Amino acid sequence: MQQQISVITLGIDDRARSRHFYSEGFGWTPIFENDEIIFYQMNGLVLGTFDRSALAKDMNRFDLVTPGAFSLAHNVAEKEDVEPLMARLAQAGGRIIRPADAPPHGGYRGYVADPDDHAWEIAWNPTWPMDAEGRVRFGL
Amino acid sequence: MQQQISVITLGIDDRARSRHFYSEGFGWTPIFENDEIIFYQMNGLVLGTFDRSALAKDMNRFDLVTPGAFSLAHNVAEKEDVEPLMARLAQAGGRIIRPADAPPHGGYRGYVADPDDHAWEIAWNPTWPMDAEGRVRFGL
Repeated sequence: MQQQISVITLGIDDRARSRHFYSEGFGWTPIFENDEIIFYQMNGLVLGTFDRSALAKDMNRFDLVTPGAFSLAHNVAEKEDVEPLMARLAQAGGRIIRPADAPPHGGYRGYVADPDDHAWEIAWNPTWPMDAEGRVRFGL
Repeated sequence: MQQQISVITLGIDDRARSRHFYSEGFGWTPIFENDEIIFYQMNGLVLGTFDRSALAKDMNRFDLVTPGAFSLAHNVAEKEDVEPLMARLAQAGGRIIRPADAPPHGGYRGYVADPDDHAWEIAWNPTWPMDAEGRVRFGL
């Protein structure tokens, strides 16, 4: 069985607000958008931001709550990249949950919530190699 | 800015229960594990299952709740693969939220919650190409 994640879909309440965060904060360009969903092509998978009630209907699960017990991470190439990106995300409508510091396992990271309260870890992790297409491998 | 997700981390309450679901249900092999966290190497990113209270401490966010307003998707090669995988996941401690059917946008899919209530969409999506390493591209 392939160890494979095809899509991460985040429920959002305000399409323009979310789009602003991802396009101005991260600098990402949608590959598709309509009134309900925006897709971003990522490193071997797709990120979707989907109207929360439409996601609930699709999942057949109507009790969705935030903040969920999960986080997404975006790794950057240099330690010095962490804080400027966190600042840009905050300026684009994000909220800093944990200012950047050095975790016990090494590297450097902080957390920012997107406008719908989904948490992103912005991390410099020198033991996890990343190729030119952004594909990451676990390392120690 | 790279359109890049390095890690998806799910908060879990019972390490053995979660490990059973991912290893027996999906058939995935950890690349690293200790008492707090299990990592799985995926298609260009890493999946982590992390003790929920340790995740909360790392995120500096102590009000984590489920079910979160997000879903993960695992695409399969054939329509006929969807239901057997959903059944295997249910047998390994998952819970079917939505039995498989055909969504308006095409393909075939259902949803299964993992033992910690994180939702996985199991999908056949013939318009989204997937290469031999499981890397997916958006398609129409």
